[in-house]
Order: sequence, then C-alpha cells, then structure tokens
Amino acid sequence: MELDLSVDAAALTATLVDAPSVSGDEGPLADAIERALGQLPHLRVERFGNSVVARTGLGRPERVVLAGHIDTVPIAGNVPSHVTGERLYGCGTSDMKSGVAVQLRLAGEVPEPARDVTYVFYDCEEIEAARNGLGQLSRAQPGLLAGDFAVLMEPSGNEIEGGCQGTMRAEVTATGQRAHSARSWMGRNAIHAAGGILDVLRSYQPREPEVDGLRYHEGLNAVGISGGVAGNVIPDRCVVTVNYRFAPDRDIAAAEAHLREVFDQWDVAIVDAAPSARPGLDQGPAASFATAVGGSPRAKLGWTDVARFAELGIPAVNYGPGISEIAHTRDEYVEIPKIGQCEARLRHWLTTP
Amino acid sequence: MELDLSVDAAALTATLVDAPSVSGDEGPLADAIERALGQLPHLRVERFGNSVVARTGLGRPERVVLAGHIDTVPIAGNVPSHVTGERLYGCGTSDMKSGVAVQLRLAGEVPEPARDVTYVFYDCEEIEAARNGLGQLSRAQPGLLAGDFAVLMEPSGNEIEGGCQGTMRAEVTATGQRAHSARSWMGRNAIHAAGGILDVLRSYQPREPEVDGLRYHEGLNAVGISGGVAGNVIPDRCVVTVNYRFAPDRDIAAAEAHLREVFDQWDVAIVDAAPSARPGLDQGPAASFATAVGGSPRAKLGWTDVARFAELGIPAVNYGPGISEIAHTRDEYVEIPKIGQCEARLRHWLTTP
Repeated sequence: MELDLSVDAAALTATLVDAPSVSGDEGPLADAIERALGQLPHLRVERFGNSVVARTGLGRPERVVLAGHIDTVPIAGNVPSHVTGERLYGCGTSDMKSGVAVQLRLAGEVPEPARDVTYVFYDCEEIEAARNGLGQLSRAQPGLLAGDFAVLMEPSGNEIEGGCQGTMRAEVTATGQRAHSARSWMGRNAIHAAGGILDVLRSYQPREPEVDGLRYHEGLNAVGISGGVAGNVIPDRCVVTVNYRFAPDRDIAAAEAHLREVFDQWDVAIVDAAPSARPGLDQGPAASFATAVGGSPRAKLGWTDVARFAELGIPAVNYGPGISEIAHTRDEYVEIPKIGQCEARLRHWLTTP
Repeated sequence: MELDLSVDAAALTATLVDAPSVSGDEGPLADAIERALGQLPHLRVERFGNSVVARTGLGRPERVVLAGHIDTVPIAGNVPSHVTGERLYGCGTSDMKSGVAVQLRLAGEVPEPARDVTYVFYDCEEIEAARNGLGQLSRAQPGLLAGDFAVLMEPSGNEIEGGCQGTMRAEVTATGQRAHSARSWMGRNAIHAAGGILDVLRSYQPREPEVDGLRYHEGLNAVGISGGVAGNVIPDRCVVTVNYRFAPDRDIAAAEAHLREVFDQWDVAIVDAAPSARPGLDQGPAASFATAVGGSPRAKLGWTDVARFAELGIPAVNYGPGISEIAHTRDEYVEIPKIGQCEARLRHWLTTP
C-alpha cells in the first residue's frame, strides 16, 4: 500500500479505512505512513514500534503536536468503506482515520508552518492501556513528544473538547459472618450489609464543577458487585466495584480521598486510576488555538490520551472531524464535509503567525 | 474389614470411623455391612449400589425404618479416631457413624423386635442431592422403604428433632440500561436498582410459626449477588440469589407464591426447591416413639432426608447420638455415653409392644 498525500482528505480517509489496522496489526499501515512521510524533505521521521513521529525543524519559537492513533476496534463487516450521500461509512471512519488523514494532509501540504509541528501516529489505543503506543512513547522517548500544546484528533465533530475527566476504580467491601442459611441469625449477611454501599451510591449527588471555563459532570457508579459462598451459606464478604469519574479540578490523590470519605464505613481498595487533565483553554497556545478554530469548546467527560500529554506538562485538547457517539459501532461513519473543514481550520491555525 | 456387632456401640463407632467412607467411596464399608448383616438369619438383606437394606419379617402390625447415611465429608486429618476423656474424636463420629453403629447394634442384638424394622444404610448424603442414596432408593425401589414411621439417625444429641424446614432458591433480577460510565446519566444502573432488593431483605421479618406443637424459624437471605459488564460500563443487569427457608406449614407452591409477592417489583426465577416436612409428633407411631424415648422434641430448622420420607407419606424424625453443631469440623467428636444411651432408648422402644 502506498499513500498519496495529494488526494483530498476524504479520499485519503477512504484509503486508510480500506487498509485494516486493528489494534496489534498496525504494521503495514505504519510502514505506509513512514514511507510517505519519509519522502518529504521538510520532515524528520522516526519509527518507534508501530508508531511514527514526523517533525518539522524550522526553529519556530513554538512547537505544537498533532497526534492520532492509527488502530481501530475489530472490523464488524464494515470494511471496505462506502459512500452514501455525504457520509463515508466504515470501521475507523470517525475513530479516527479521518483525523489521521487530516494529519497526513497537513504534514504533506504545509511544509513551512508558522509554528513547528510534531505529527504523532501511534498504535494500540483501543486496547489495554499498557500497550498504548502514546503511553509507550511518553515513557521511552518523552523528548519526541515535546511541545507547547497538543491536539489529539479524536472524533469531536470539529469542536474543541477540553481536558478530560479522570477515572478511578475501587473495591468497596462489606463484611459479615458466615452461618448456615437454615440458621441465618447465627451470622451476619455481608450482601445485606452491602445494601448500605448501594444506599450511598443511590443518594450520591455528583458534582458538576466549572474548570477553566468548561462545565464537567462527575459520576460515581457501581460497575460490578460480587458476593456469595454457596447456596446454603450466609456470605461473609461482598465486594462492590465502583467507578469514580472526576473532574479535572481533582487529581488522583483528591479523588482517592473523596472515595475514602464517601465510603468511610467500609474497606476501600483502589484498583486503578487515570488522571484528569485541565482544559487550560484560557491561556497560552491553547487559547490561540481556540481563537483560530472557533466554535464552542466543551468539556471532555470521558478519559482520553489528552491526560498523557497533561502528565508530560503539555496542554492538550481533542479536536477531530469524527463523531464520537457512533465510534465502535457497525454503522460508524464520518460526515465527508467535516473532514475538509477540519483540514482547512487546522491549516489556517498552523499557517497563521 | 469385618464388623463385629457384639462389641459395644462406642467401640463399633470407632471401627466405622477408622474405615474411611467419604462420599463416593463407600464401597468397602457397604460391603462390610452387607457381610455382617447377611450372617444374621432374622434379617433379609438387599444391596442397591452402595446402599444396604436389611429387614425383619416377623409379620408385626407395624413396621418402622431406621435409616442412616454411611458416607462422610472429606477427611481433614481427623482419621483414625482417638479417645480423649469421654469424647471419641474423628471424621464422622457425630455425623453420623455413631448413629450407624447404633443401627448395626440393634440389627444384630434385637432379633425379635415388637415392631418389624427396616434398617437402611445409604450413601452419598453429603454431596449433591441427585446422588443421595436414599433419594435413589425412594425413586427406584420405594417398596424397600415402606413403613409406618422412620427415624433418621442424624446427630441430634438424643433429642427428637421433628419435621424439617423446606428450602427454595430464587434469582431476583434488577434490570437497567447500559451506558458508558463517563456519561452514567445516559443509562440506568442495575446494581443500584438491586439496592431495592437488598432493602426488602434487610427489612424482612421472618415468621416463627408453631407447627404440630414445635416452633420453627424461617429465614430469607441473599446467598449470592452478581452484576457488572466492564469497568467502564453502567450495568444493565444484577442478579440476587435468595434462599428462603420455610416452615412446614408451607409447601413448595406456597413458598414460591410468597417469594413472588415479596419481590413483586422484580423478575423472580425459581432455581431449586426441597419440600418441608411436618413433625407429626402428635399422633400415631411418631407419638409412641416420642413417649418411648422421652426428652423435649424440637423443630428441625435445616433440611434433612426426613423430607424424603415425608414425600413417601412416612412420618419421620431425626434422632441420633451425635452433635450437629460440630459436624463437618476438623474437631468433630461424639460424647461416648450418648451412643450407649441412644442404643438403650431405641432398644426399649423396639422391644416394647
């Protein structure tokens, strides 16, 4: 497969969709990207596993990062792509090969941007966090990701989605005392006791704080419950797994403190956590970007790789032509006019001093 | 192994304990019982799998059944048996080889009882109900179990335990609607909804009815709970498994109707059920037995094989020298004087017209 960066972004999107790259099998697509960009004299291209990083080196006072993952969820009978009206259908059209096409177009067509640009194409975003290509790059070669601001080209309908909420999972455990269920009063039923945990969850009022001008919406929910020893035994243990989605005015430590306070009557064990990221749209290069592309910035409620840039101290936003609501569905599509619109806006931003 | 029925019942108990017969491995012990009883001219002995049935045939107007299971739970370093003071320790001492020893002594030493006697020694009581030897006998050859009254020699400290409570398990299901946990308000959390089921259980007031003069004590408890799709998904289903222990004034149909009424806001699926059995101590041969052995009859709260006799239309009670509270424990023992006391009382009953 060879990529022709001179075709329009919608046609390039179709080419990318028709080159399957399910997580773990991104090799051929990464090869094609590396070859196409390697021919461009204004870019320095480096390969890291199945991730590709291409950088301008114009000595500009500011450097921005445009990042996108090249993998998709498993194909569901929706490859090759097809066009119906103004929609391009297929696996990855929205999430996020249309964004990758825009990256490639800008890399090929804007040889002398007003700000230096680092284009990052990475693998394994749709699977377990440990394999995420951006995460691996940030740990192994953080210098490759250096910059003053980053745009993740995740589907956002060409509206800025700022920051992201953090996520924490914890196991909240109710305990009791075993007994034979024929003499249940000899024990204490831990599942019944877990009703108290569910009471807390049912009456919980999530915060909706405004952070850097954007409104977030937290959530605290049971995502799992498990208890029981045998059909004739009063159980002595019931574990409720809760998921706390926290706004970016809280870091992981504050989120944990909150959970421990809310569930102070029970044993709480933190299972995993991913940090939030502030939108930071009110200052610096992020503010310039917001001005350049316009629209109505909104808060990103889900967790995204934006937080990985935040951990490196780089403000970042999501901005891409896809539609997040239909990502991962069999009927995934992208609105074709949005792809060109995205390219035009970013080109305007990159070329405006 | 050969069984000497002329030694006292405590010594015979020790011999039985020292012949391991964990459920499924009762063959050698069943062989020994069959051989020992087969030498007695006053008994007709029949073998059914690893169960043995021995009957007198004196033409008495009344026939009673003495039944005991010969299997034990797995050995926990507590074989061979040993004596400390007045206690015989070991796996099965209470549950229920001391009762089996009394059966064997009576079978051997009372050749002309005042009522015909059917001695039943059966296998696989301590494991899944489908393999229970008494259940298999009652389905395949119910005539072998025919009688006017039955005594199950389960551990009861030489006090009559009458009837038994029934048991029913049901799955009570709360439903909801899936959503991504970053936007939990787009869904309905089924685990949170299951809090309503736990509310019902926590406020439930169990009945304590008197039936045929004995006081029962019901119970309704969660014995299992399960829900959850993934760590980032609002779950759409949570199943609470409840166990209802019901007094013998309710049959299975009445128990099911009660559960469906209590949980009328949720889907209820009956998983399994075993019937209750009335004590029936106020009339007929059961009343004669109660008079002969004395003591203070009490209600049996757990489910026992008494209910299998009830299903055959045969009144039955538990009566044996063991201690039920320490059955299945590593430190299981039987009080040695209780074994002889049990034998003496039953001998008095069997020989008194």
